[in-house]
Amino acid sequence: MSETGIGTFYGVGLGPGDPELLTRKAMRILSEVDWIFYPFEARTGTSFSRRILTALAVPAAKCRQISLGMAQDRGPDQYTYATAAEAMAKEVRQGKSAAWVTQGDPLFYSTFIHLYLEMRRRFPDVPITIVPGVTSPSAAAAAAGVPVSLLEEKVAVVPAVYGLDHLPTLLDDFATVFLMKVNTVFDQVLETLAALPHRVHAVYAERVGTPEERLVTDLHTLRGQKLSYFSLIILRQDKSILAAAQQKEGV
Amino acid sequence: MSETGIGTFYGVGLGPGDPELLTRKAMRILSEVDWIFYPFEARTGTSFSRRILTALAVPAAKCRQISLGMAQDRGPDQYTYATAAEAMAKEVRQGKSAAWVTQGDPLFYSTFIHLYLEMRRRFPDVPITIVPGVTSPSAAAAAAGVPVSLLEEKVAVVPAVYGLDHLPTLLDDFATVFLMKVNTVFDQVLETLAALPHRVHAVYAERVGTPEERLVTDLHTLRGQKLSYFSLIILRQDKSILAAAQQKEGV
Repeated sequence: MSETGIGTFYGVGLGPGDPELLTRKAMRILSEVDWIFYPFEARTGTSFSRRILTALAVPAAKCRQISLGMAQDRGPDQYTYATAAEAMAKEVRQGKSAAWVTQGDPLFYSTFIHLYLEMRRRFPDVPITIVPGVTSPSAAAAAAGVPVSLLEEKVAVVPAVYGLDHLPTLLDDFATVFLMKVNTVFDQVLETLAALPHRVHAVYAERVGTPEERLVTDLHTLRGQKLSYFSLIILRQDKSILAAAQQKEGV
Repeated sequence: MSETGIGTFYGVGLGPGDPELLTRKAMRILSEVDWIFYPFEARTGTSFSRRILTALAVPAAKCRQISLGMAQDRGPDQYTYATAAEAMAKEVRQGKSAAWVTQGDPLFYSTFIHLYLEMRRRFPDVPITIVPGVTSPSAAAAAAGVPVSLLEEKVAVVPAVYGLDHLPTLLDDFATVFLMKVNTVFDQVLETLAALPHRVHAVYAERVGTPEERLVTDLHTLRGQKLSYFSLIILRQDKSILAAAQQKEGV
């Protein structure tokens, strides 16, 4: 509790999946806060966050599960976010601290953004601290040994479902392109890559940092498979890097 | 030392500047390895990495400083990278472990990439483990309270000196654009932003996470100033987010 008698609302990035890839600051905040709110995906019955909280031995008594539909229609979840923001604001105004935890980084394709905007709009007196985290693109590149950017190079991050038409142009302009959430359009991605005038180095990465981690460089072997929502593809242009990466695969 | 009698070469991301934004894994590796090689910028006489290593109380006896020119002409540094790779490969082949540490993430605009490519090419038997880190864009967005990406949004990371002509087009296509290394072309950035048909939310961020951290939303106040090399600008389109961010500034 601060001197003003009000607590703090934290947005905490848990990193890409490996509990060791949490920052020291995230770890400290999780141990210090009164309440940890974490999203639970009702549709799949899973919670990325709970798994990490369990691995870190965070006391279950201070954790509150918030069930989200995560459907394309985010209307019902909007109501859930509003209710959760109210609950957290109430705690903070009583001098308690509350954290909303998310996979990766709290401002990068994350549920936290909804809570953050809701809190800012309706409870502007609530102090907010955001703790950044390691993103899944960084973790995937590290696991696959693919350099992301050197010197003057440009990087793009594009949700696959919205970016395939523009992919050939993107690959001309950007040294590395991360295609996010490729699971629903994977076969279209294969066709788009096959039609490119030049070969690019591609790595499929799934659930990086978890025991189910999977890295695949021959993308065709995945055709027709059911793929994880926590998946992305790294596409990389540079020839020297391509050579280095291939050498790594051979080790 | 592994069962094969050979050690490991680590690329370790130290995060954006705050020693608390190191990952738990990075912290463990730094305490376990025999040698830590860190870059020292001869031109400015500073070392981002040494500052963090000192803050973490890593024993100086296992740290080795490698002096780099970091000039536009990277020829002389290439020789330094080659020599450092040789020294680390020698240690690893003798069963020792060696880490090359870098600001942010080891594969994102980092000196580690040079060591990595050199090691792969010349010493392919050396096992390599890369520990990802929190990037400066993630840290800057967290400090400034600017959401980076929601749902279908696209993100671009562009070194300012190479991307200004295309900036208006980029801002049409990407919800958030990070302009990296803006210090040498800052006044041109101002002109480019002023000529845009619509206003975008812009935040200048410098040395985020260090005691010298600086966040500036009225970019014009920086005109003509000498700016840090460790600087970037976040450019963000979305109107609702713009409103939320402005609200935060008012707190």
